[in-house]
Amino acid sequence: MRKNPLILVTNDDGITAPGILNLIKVVRKFTNRIVVVAPDSPQSGMGHAITMNAMLRLKKQDIEGTEAYACSGTPVDCVKIATSKVLKEKPDLVVSGINHGSNSSINVIYSGTMSAAVEGAIEGIPSIGFSLCNHSIDADFSHVHSYIEKIIHFALNNSSSNFSCLNVNFPAVPFDMINGIRVCRQADAMWEEEFNERHDPAGNPYYWMTGKFVNHEPEKEDTDEWALSHNFVSVVPVQFDVTAHQSLALLKDLENE
Amino acid sequence: MRKNPLILVTNDDGITAPGILNLIKVVRKFTNRIVVVAPDSPQSGMGHAITMNAMLRLKKQDIEGTEAYACSGTPVDCVKIATSKVLKEKPDLVVSGINHGSNSSINVIYSGTMSAAVEGAIEGIPSIGFSLCNHSIDADFSHVHSYIEKIIHFALNNSSSNFSCLNVNFPAVPFDMINGIRVCRQADAMWEEEFNERHDPAGNPYYWMTGKFVNHEPEKEDTDEWALSHNFVSVVPVQFDVTAHQSLALLKDLENE
Repeated sequence: MRKNPLILVTNDDGITAPGILNLIKVVRKFTNRIVVVAPDSPQSGMGHAITMNAMLRLKKQDIEGTEAYACSGTPVDCVKIATSKVLKEKPDLVVSGINHGSNSSINVIYSGTMSAAVEGAIEGIPSIGFSLCNHSIDADFSHVHSYIEKIIHFALNNSSSNFSCLNVNFPAVPFDMINGIRVCRQADAMWEEEFNERHDPAGNPYYWMTGKFVNHEPEKEDTDEWALSHNFVSVVPVQFDVTAHQSLALLKDLENE
Repeated sequence: MRKNPLILVTNDDGITAPGILNLIKVVRKFTNRIVVVAPDSPQSGMGHAITMNAMLRLKKQDIEGTEAYACSGTPVDCVKIATSKVLKEKPDLVVSGINHGSNSSINVIYSGTMSAAVEGAIEGIPSIGFSLCNHSIDADFSHVHSYIEKIIHFALNNSSSNFSCLNVNFPAVPFDMINGIRVCRQADAMWEEEFNERHDPAGNPYYWMTGKFVNHEPEKEDTDEWALSHNFVSVVPVQFDVTAHQSLALLKDLENE
C-alpha cells in the first residue's frame, strides 16, 4: 500500500447525503489526502449519463476538514472533472457511495453510484462502489464501516490486475447478523415496470414509473442476490467491456449476408 | 421470420431527428406494425439513465402514417413505457437510431441510443442500435439503408439464442467505399477529457467538457474501431451482464479478510 494514498470520493445521492459522510469517515483511516467531488443534487438512476451541450459548475466546500466540491453534473461528470481538472495527480482509488439503496444485479446498469465507479475504472483507476440495501435517508450505516475498511484495505494492497471495479452491496441487517463477504456474479434479474397513469388539472395524462424486481435465478448460490438474501456482503467485479464474446462466432454469417 | 412482426423504434437524438426517419423507412420494408416511442428532445450521452422521482409525458403523433409517441423521458424510459404501457404485446424487435455520431468502443456505455437497445435486451427482446459516424444533422443516411435491411433481416430470422443486442456502426463514407460487414469486439478505448474553464458575467467559473478519443489498441483487427477505420460496417454483440468473470477467482481472498 502506498503511504498516504490519494483517494477520490463521490456518490449519486448528492454531496449532503449521510452515505457519503459515512464513506469519508472510513477513508480517513487510510489517508489524509482525500478529495470529494459529488453531485450538488440527487442523481439516482442517472446510469452512465454525461452532460453534453451544457456547462458544469463546481463549488468548493469543506466537509469536516476534507476538501470537497459540489458539481452540477452527473456522477460520471464528477469523476471526469475530478480527474482532469480538480486533482493534480491520478488518484490511487475512487470510492463511490455509500448509496442509499441496493445496486445489486441489474441495478448496476441504472446506478449513478456504480457508473461513477465504472468511469474510474475506464480511466485506469481501481474503483469501488458501495451500497446499502436500505433506501431510507435515516439508514444506519455504522454496521458496514468495518467491512468497507477491509475492502478498501484489500483494494489498496492488490494490484489493478486483480480487479478494476467492484460493486459492493451490504444487507440491511445488524452487524452481528452479517455472515461475511461473498465474491459473486451479477444475478440475472430485471425490473418489470408498471406505469401509473394520472391526469393533471387540465385533463392531460402523465405517468409515474413503478416496478417490481424479478430475480430469474433465486436458487443460484453464486449470485449477488443470493448472497444478500442470505445476509452476506456481496462483492461483484465489474467490467466495461460489454462485448458478448460468446456470441461472436454465432454472428459470423452476418459477414456474408 | 414471423409474418408482419411488431417492431419498436426509438433513438436518443429525439423524435424529429433525420436518423430515426431513415430507420423507420427501412423498417417499413418488413412490416406495417411499427410503433415509435422516442424522446421529445435530444438525449445524447444519457447512457442508461431512467427518470426517477419525476413524471413522464407521452404525446401521440404521426410520422408519415406510422404510430408514434414523443416521450419526455430518456431513451431507456422510452423503451420501458413502450413495452409496458403503449404496446399491447411484446415486440419482436427493438431498433434504436440511426444515431447521428459514432457509438463504437467505449461510447456504447455513454450512448442513449445503445442504452435503449440494451434495455430491450434486458426485457428479453432482440435489439439493435444503429449509428452513423457523422454527427451532422444533415448527414446522408441513404448509403446505409441496404445494410440496415440486411441486419434486420438477419435478426428477425435468427433466434435470440444467437444474440440479444447488437451495436451497429456505419463509416461515414459513400456506399461504394464500404467493404462489407465485420462482426467484432468493443475496442479498448476511452475519452481523455479536458475541461474548458470560462467565467460568467458575475466572475464565477463554469466548465465545458471537451475530450480527445484514445484507442489503446489501434492495430487490433478484431475490434470495431479497426473495422470502422477500414470502412467496414462494425457489428458488436452486447451483453448486460457486466460481471468481470475472469476476476472472480482472483478476489476469493476477500472472503477471508
